Amino acid sequence: MKVNVGIIGFGVIGSGVAKLILTHGGLITKRTGVELNILKIADLDIESDRGIDIDKSCLTTNMNDVLENEDIDIVVELVGGTTISFDIVKKALENKKHVVTANKALLYEHGSKLFEIAVQNEREIRFEASVGGGIPIIRVITESLAGDKVSEIYGIVNGTTNFILTKMINEQWQFDYALKQAQELGFAEADPTLDIDGSDAAHKIAVLARVAFGAEVKKENVLKEGIEGINLQDVLYAKELGYVIKLLAIAKRSGESMEIRVHPALLPEDCNMASVSNEFNAVMLNSDFLGFSHYVGKGAGAEPTASAVVGDLADLGVFIKYKREYVASRFEAFNKYETLESGKILSRYYLRLTTIDKAGILAKILKILGDNKVSISSIIQKEVPEEETEPVSVIILTHSCTERDIQNAVSIINDLDTTKKDTVLLRVEDMEM
Amino acid sequence: MKVNVGIIGFGVIGSGVAKLILTHGGLITKRTGVELNILKIADLDIESDRGIDIDKSCLTTNMNDVLENEDIDIVVELVGGTTISFDIVKKALENKKHVVTANKALLYEHGSKLFEIAVQNEREIRFEASVGGGIPIIRVITESLAGDKVSEIYGIVNGTTNFILTKMINEQWQFDYALKQAQELGFAEADPTLDIDGSDAAHKIAVLARVAFGAEVKKENVLKEGIEGINLQDVLYAKELGYVIKLLAIAKRSGESMEIRVHPALLPEDCNMASVSNEFNAVMLNSDFLGFSHYVGKGAGAEPTASAVVGDLADLGVFIKYKREYVASRFEAFNKYETLESGKILSRYYLRLTTIDKAGILAKILKILGDNKVSISSIIQKEVPEEETEPVSVIILTHSCTERDIQNAVSIINDLDTTKKDTVLLRVEDMEM
Repeated sequence: MKVNVGIIGFGVIGSGVAKLILTHGGLITKRTGVELNILKIADLDIESDRGIDIDKSCLTTNMNDVLENEDIDIVVELVGGTTISFDIVKKALENKKHVVTANKALLYEHGSKLFEIAVQNEREIRFEASVGGGIPIIRVITESLAGDKVSEIYGIVNGTTNFILTKMINEQWQFDYALKQAQELGFAEADPTLDIDGSDAAHKIAVLARVAFGAEVKKENVLKEGIEGINLQDVLYAKELGYVIKLLAIAKRSGESMEIRVHPALLPEDCNMASVSNEFNAVMLNSDFLGFSHYVGKGAGAEPTASAVVGDLADLGVFIKYKREYVASRFEAFNKYETLESGKILSRYYLRLTTIDKAGILAKILKILGDNKVSISSIIQKEVPEEETEPVSVIILTHSCTERDIQNAVSIINDLDTTKKDTVLLRVEDMEM
Repeated sequence: MKVNVGIIGFGVIGSGVAKLILTHGGLITKRTGVELNILKIADLDIESDRGIDIDKSCLTTNMNDVLENEDIDIVVELVGGTTISFDIVKKALENKKHVVTANKALLYEHGSKLFEIAVQNEREIRFEASVGGGIPIIRVITESLAGDKVSEIYGIVNGTTNFILTKMINEQWQFDYALKQAQELGFAEADPTLDIDGSDAAHKIAVLARVAFGAEVKKENVLKEGIEGINLQDVLYAKELGYVIKLLAIAKRSGESMEIRVHPALLPEDCNMASVSNEFNAVMLNSDFLGFSHYVGKGAGAEPTASAVVGDLADLGVFIKYKREYVASRFEAFNKYETLESGKILSRYYLRLTTIDKAGILAKILKILGDNKVSISSIIQKEVPEEETEPVSVIILTHSCTERDIQNAVSIINDLDTTKKDTVLLRVEDMEM
């Protein structure tokens, strides 16, 4: 059976999708009985050569030629951003087309609205490519674990920051140099803000939480911290302590609530996540029956992303072919969890204090921590100063405490006259595997 | 829609499947619209308490109550072995029932015949649980990569051997002690032969090759070596060289042929596979569009295996509900590859020679290697002997050469008077990630 596809956005990913369908279309038909047929591709630029053998008559600069085309069954949205893309997805659904998108920012900003429109129109939105292009994680959660319940998700879901941190760890590069190299090698955008500050990872973990827990993330309760403040010094101290620093995205449910957070984390150097290097992404799940499982693949790039988009297209093709009944409850299989306020999140912490090493100062700091219900697991003074006025670095690892308590304690410590620089605060995740 | 399931074999896995359906059945229905209903369970023992609330009237000691029951849509075969299980699967298919099985030995021995019967009867055999229970690898290959072509599969697919090797590496346990501990902890069977000698891993890689390449493995061409000969000495030497030893199962296609092999391999200590520890399993795929992707999870145990079986049941339930057309070409999407004779397989090698260190001996050994087209990447003599008659260990790492050439060279070296013990030969896999 022929299924007609319209693509909006003919950039790197769009060309990759077209190329994959042209190259492996026969394989898909053999495997699924569905023939994917590209009917229209819309882009403002339809002149540049993409190195693909596409009939010129397929190309259009008017996206309504896709959205209003009655023969098109599935629209692939590859425009990016959250404004035009919203209009495209909305209109496609309202015109009774299924949608495939790689746009995590769109799902983060307008996911609830779009899924509502999808349900009203009994059409599907598929978005495997939105998280970890090379990892079929959405399908693993929704289908392979159809009879299981995911309780925890840990992700290294941003390739840019993972590349930078890997180079800081392995090559002792400074952050700025690593970022520059990432840009030159094409692993970072010219404006890398959304990657570096954790926003991209936050979008992705919210998508995963929606799928795994059937829950809408309350954006203001998301704890989000990027890697812009990561110092080579802390990378090296962490290494001495047996940890590597990774930008970790976490979603956990417990009781009626879930916590959603993105921040640099110290991970034990021998855990699975620690060996996920450079531009690779990884997701670890914990589920009731399966226990821990771990998925690693390339996070971005035209081909892995295209592969994920085409996987969704093949699946929707089968859906259309067999006129499957629309299951609106698909993403609502769990309870609705409340997003925990970030202050209530529990974690262990790594603190690096820069303080004068006078008699009694350390005792004072420990008292401040104790008064705020923060207990200490270990404490290491890095240098012995030549003079009493010279500040030293003190590393403190804490036991588990709340974000609110540690922030209070650190803010009091930072106000001490003897504290010479703002304390570095990083979270520690003692991953079990 | 209600889909009726019959289970044959009510042991640990069978009970796990029943428990999972009873616990999370509602979730599955919400997600898929299919209600999985256990109609009959057959086992010789229907008296023992499995701690599950199953109606006594479901239980039977006569498996024909399942196989000949007209109301049953799907039969779950959990009997094990390759004889009775063959009859069960055959009869179930002939009676127009779909089959779910976790039995890799059965698929290895009689896979072609059974798939033929399945095609004749237009019924499905699903077997996600047969390889890496906790890793949804079959679905990843057949569905997520529906539009991609897998070219290489690397697997750590046997939990018993991985547990033993992990303990040898991390705790410096001897093989015999590690095996005994594995048995006491329930990670090894009373008779662990099929695990230790690589057979179980060979069954599993053959299943993966069938799914990924659409090809039947020629059993006599499979290169199979177990871990029974792994010496703590070699584990430690490998570590010094920056490698860890894992039992690796490999399937690669190239041109018209594919190579299938299972053997201990030296892996770079910082690669993803190296950090897969204890009872965990892992599979790494390389595919045309996606590139490398890596999947880790628990390999065995009641719950991960049950989770995989139920995933297959849910999927077949959807298949039945929508009366999907039977796609016989599903596993025949690729060419038929010939299994390469094991002598033609290329690899790098680690050799440990035990030899008298007389003048000229090393030169003689190197000449033997050279004459057999084996070139050397590095050579390390471990001890300096006190007397010339005392044998020393010499470690040689080779460049890539054929299995036949290295075996010839080693056999000549072993025949030298100066060689005091059979040379240890291990393969080196320089995994890229």
